[in-house]
Amino acid sequence: MTTYDIAALKARLSGIRTEDNPALVKQKSRDFFWYSPVLKRQLDQVSADIVVSPTSEEQVLQTLAAAHGLGIPVTPRGTGTGNYGQAMPLSGGVLLDLAGFNKVKRIEHGRYVAEPGAIMARIDDETRAHSRQELRLHPSTYQTASIGGFIAGGSGGVGSIKWGGLRDWGNIIRLKVATMEASPRILELAGDDLHKVAHAYGTNGIITEVEMPLGPAYDWVDVILGFDTLRAATEFANQLGEQDGLALKNLAVIAAPIGQDYFLRHKKFLPQGKHLVVVMAADFAVEALLAYARRFRGAELLLRSDRLSAEEAKGLPPAYELGWNHTTLRALRVDPAITYLQVLYPFPNQVELVERIHARFGDEVLCHLEFVRFDGKITCFGLPLVRFTTEERLDEIIAVHEEMGAPIFNPHRYTLEEGGMKQTDDAQLAFKREADPQGLLNPGKMIAWEDPDYDYRSGKTFLFRSLSEAGVG
Amino acid sequence: MTTYDIAALKARLSGIRTEDNPALVKQKSRDFFWYSPVLKRQLDQVSADIVVSPTSEEQVLQTLAAAHGLGIPVTPRGTGTGNYGQAMPLSGGVLLDLAGFNKVKRIEHGRYVAEPGAIMARIDDETRAHSRQELRLHPSTYQTASIGGFIAGGSGGVGSIKWGGLRDWGNIIRLKVATMEASPRILELAGDDLHKVAHAYGTNGIITEVEMPLGPAYDWVDVILGFDTLRAATEFANQLGEQDGLALKNLAVIAAPIGQDYFLRHKKFLPQGKHLVVVMAADFAVEALLAYARRFRGAELLLRSDRLSAEEAKGLPPAYELGWNHTTLRALRVDPAITYLQVLYPFPNQVELVERIHARFGDEVLCHLEFVRFDGKITCFGLPLVRFTTEERLDEIIAVHEEMGAPIFNPHRYTLEEGGMKQTDDAQLAFKREADPQGLLNPGKMIAWEDPDYDYRSGKTFLFRSLSEAGVG
Repeated sequence: MTTYDIAALKARLSGIRTEDNPALVKQKSRDFFWYSPVLKRQLDQVSADIVVSPTSEEQVLQTLAAAHGLGIPVTPRGTGTGNYGQAMPLSGGVLLDLAGFNKVKRIEHGRYVAEPGAIMARIDDETRAHSRQELRLHPSTYQTASIGGFIAGGSGGVGSIKWGGLRDWGNIIRLKVATMEASPRILELAGDDLHKVAHAYGTNGIITEVEMPLGPAYDWVDVILGFDTLRAATEFANQLGEQDGLALKNLAVIAAPIGQDYFLRHKKFLPQGKHLVVVMAADFAVEALLAYARRFRGAELLLRSDRLSAEEAKGLPPAYELGWNHTTLRALRVDPAITYLQVLYPFPNQVELVERIHARFGDEVLCHLEFVRFDGKITCFGLPLVRFTTEERLDEIIAVHEEMGAPIFNPHRYTLEEGGMKQTDDAQLAFKREADPQGLLNPGKMIAWEDPDYDYRSGKTFLFRSLSEAGVG
Repeated sequence: MTTYDIAALKARLSGIRTEDNPALVKQKSRDFFWYSPVLKRQLDQVSADIVVSPTSEEQVLQTLAAAHGLGIPVTPRGTGTGNYGQAMPLSGGVLLDLAGFNKVKRIEHGRYVAEPGAIMARIDDETRAHSRQELRLHPSTYQTASIGGFIAGGSGGVGSIKWGGLRDWGNIIRLKVATMEASPRILELAGDDLHKVAHAYGTNGIITEVEMPLGPAYDWVDVILGFDTLRAATEFANQLGEQDGLALKNLAVIAAPIGQDYFLRHKKFLPQGKHLVVVMAADFAVEALLAYARRFRGAELLLRSDRLSAEEAKGLPPAYELGWNHTTLRALRVDPAITYLQVLYPFPNQVELVERIHARFGDEVLCHLEFVRFDGKITCFGLPLVRFTTEERLDEIIAVHEEMGAPIFNPHRYTLEEGGMKQTDDAQLAFKREADPQGLLNPGKMIAWEDPDYDYRSGKTFLFRSLSEAGVG
C-alpha cells in the first residue's frame, strides 16, 4: 500500500484537529459495513492514516488543498452510520471527519440551511422549536446520522411514504460542494446539478452546506396492527399507503417471526404468528387510520403509542427504530448470522411479487417491506432478512429475485455502481473529472473512474486494487 | 306547490334573523346552477318562502325543531357557490342560511375546528396568522365559499394534487350534524361515519361544526408554462404530478385557446396557440420545478408570479382562480354559450385518453384538466369547456366520453346520484332515514329517498315532483 507524507500534512493543517493514533483512526475508519458478511470479510482491515476534523468551510478547504498538494486521498465521513462501506478509506490517507462541522445556519418556512455534520435529530430539535417543522426524510439512524452523510450515502427512509426519495426533485434544494484541487473551489449546485453529487459517496466533492426542505412536525403516533398472513398485511399496507389524505410518516410490513424474535422490547405486544404493519401517523390521523383498518377482516390493533401508560411506554424504541435497517440491526443483535438485501418490488405488481418471492424462499428470507412513493405511485422496497450461509448462496438469492422481477440494490458491495443501477452514472463521472481530477476523493468507490471498461454484467465483484493487494478477494 | 305556515314559523323563531321579502328570498335561493344551461332551464324559478339565518348551534336546533313541527322543508346553504343546485330549495320552505354561523373555534397543530359558515379564505387568514398553516383543500371559490358548503357539496379542488379529495380518509376529521326531528339531536361523526354526510347536499343532517386537517401554508408561486401541443402539455403535467418531492398545490392543463380567449388579465403573457400548464408551487420548489421542466423539449416559461414587477402583477388573479370551475366562469363571462362537463380520466391511461377524446370532438369540447391524487396514483379530472348547442347534443357528448372509458360526473343534474355514481348510496340513505325521517331536508336531491325504484340506467333525467308540476321537464 502507498505510504503518504502524513507529517508534512499535519504541518499544513495547523489549527485543525487531527488524530493519528492508529487504534482511534481505525475506529473512525469504520462504518456499519459489518451488516454484510461479504463487506465484513473484505473491509475489516481498512484504515486511514489520519483523521482530520475540520469545523468550518475554511478548514475543509485548507485540508483539501494540503492533501491535494501531497497526493493524499481523502475520504469524507459524517458519523459513519452507512452500511456499504461508503465512508471507509480503501486507500488509506485522510479520513475527513465532518461530525464537528455541524451548525444549523438558517431556518425558514419550508426549508433550512445546515453544515454537513449536523445530526438529523438535532436539526429537528431546532426546526421544531423554531416553527414546528421537521426533516421530510431521515434514515432509521436519525439519532446519530449526519445530514451530509445521508445525502452523500443514503437514498430515502422514514418519510418516503409521503415524499419519495432523496433522488426525487425537490427533496434537496441546494448543496455547496468543495472541489479537490490545488486551490479547492466552492460550487453551488441546485436543480438537475444535484444529481451529480447526491448519493456519490463523496467521490466527487465534499458537501460543505446543505439546503433542504422541511415538512410539518406533527405529533407522530406509532401504531402496530397484526394480520394472520403476510399477504393480508401486505395488501393492507399497500392500500393504506394509497390513502392520500392520511398523514403518515412511515409504513412497514414485518413478517412473523421477526418482531416476536428480534423486537425485544415490543415482544409483549406481539402475539406469536402475527405479521405486523408498523405505522407512524399524525395524532389527528390515528382515528381515521383505525377506522380504515376496521374495513379489513382480521386486522388487529396491537399497539398505539398514544394510549400506553408511562410504564408500558418506558424503554420502547420509536417505530422508526423498528424499520429500515434498524430491523436488520435488531435481528443481528440476536442472531449474528442474519444479513439482508435491498429489493425493489416494482409497481403495480408489488403485492403479488412479495408473496411469490417469499413463498419461494420460506424461512431463509424473512419479509420486511417499507412502503414508499416511487415515481408518483405507492410501492414497496424490501429489506428482507437473510439467514446467511455462503456468499454463493447469497448471490443465488439475489439472482432469483432479479429473475422474478425484483431488482436488487446490493448492500454487499461497496461501489456506487454495484450497489445501484449497475451502470456508469455519466453525470457523477463527469463531475468527478471536473472536481477531483487527480482521483483523490474516496478512491475505489466509483468503478467508472477506476476501470472505465468494467463489465457490470460479468457477474463478478469489482475489487479495488488496494483490497486485492490485501488479499481479500 | 304546497304552501307552508310561514307566519307560525316566524313566531317560533324569535331572536333569529329571518327574511321573507320575496325578491331577497329568491336571490338567496340561487346558487351557481346557471353554469349549466340544463339546470338554468329547470331551476330558474325555484325559491324558498323564507330565509332563516341562525348564528349558533342553538339557533339551528331551534329552527329545525320549528320547521319540523310545522312540516316545512329546510334547505341549508353556505354562500351558494355550488354549481349543481345543491343549495336550491326545490320544495320551497326554509332556506337555512348558515353564512353568519361562521366562527373559527380552535386551531391546533395540523387541525382546526370551525362553524360551518366560515369562509375558507378567512379560516386561512386565522390559521396562517396562528401558525402558518392552511386548509389542505379548497375550491376555486375559496374567497367566498364556506367550509360547510364545501364539505356538503364539494369533492376536492386546489390541494387535491397533494391530498386527494374530500372523500379520502383523513381529509375530514370530525363533523357535528344536527338531525331534523321533533327534538333535533346533535351527532358527532368521525371515521367511516363521515361518508354518511359528506357530499350529501345537506339532505340528511345540518353540519354545525367541522374539524379539518391543516397543511403547511407555504408562499405559493404561480408558474405558467406553454407547450405547442396538448399532448406535450398533458404528458408534462402528468409527469410533474408524479414528482413526489415537489411541494405543489395545484396543477392544471388549459388547452389553447382557453387562456388566450378567456383569461383576460393574463392574456398578455399567453402567446397564441400555446397550451398551458398552470402550477402553484411552494417558493422553495420553483427552481426544482423549472429545472425539471427544462428536461422537456419545448416547455416554455410564460409566467412566474414571484418575478413580476408590481405593475405587471397588478390585477392578476391567483392561479387557483384560473382553475377548477373558475376556468368555466371566465369562459362564461366572455361567451355565455359555453358550458362544461366533469370527467374522470382513469389511471393509468389518462394521457392517451385525453388525447383521443379531444381529437374526437375538436373545437366543440376544449380541454381543461386538473391533476389530482386519486387512490394513491396521479391522474386527472377534466372540466372541459363545451360549446353548448342542445341538451341532446350535450347528452351525446357525455355518452361518447363514457363509451370511450371516461366516466362523467354530470354537472347538469341536481340530484346526488345523477351527478355522482348513478347508484344509491346506502350509507347516505340509511342516515337520512335516521336523521330526517320526515324527509324535510333539502327535498328532491336524493333520488333513493324520493323514488327507491328509480332506474338509473334508464337514460332519463330524474325530475322532482315540484319541478314537474312547474312544467320544466
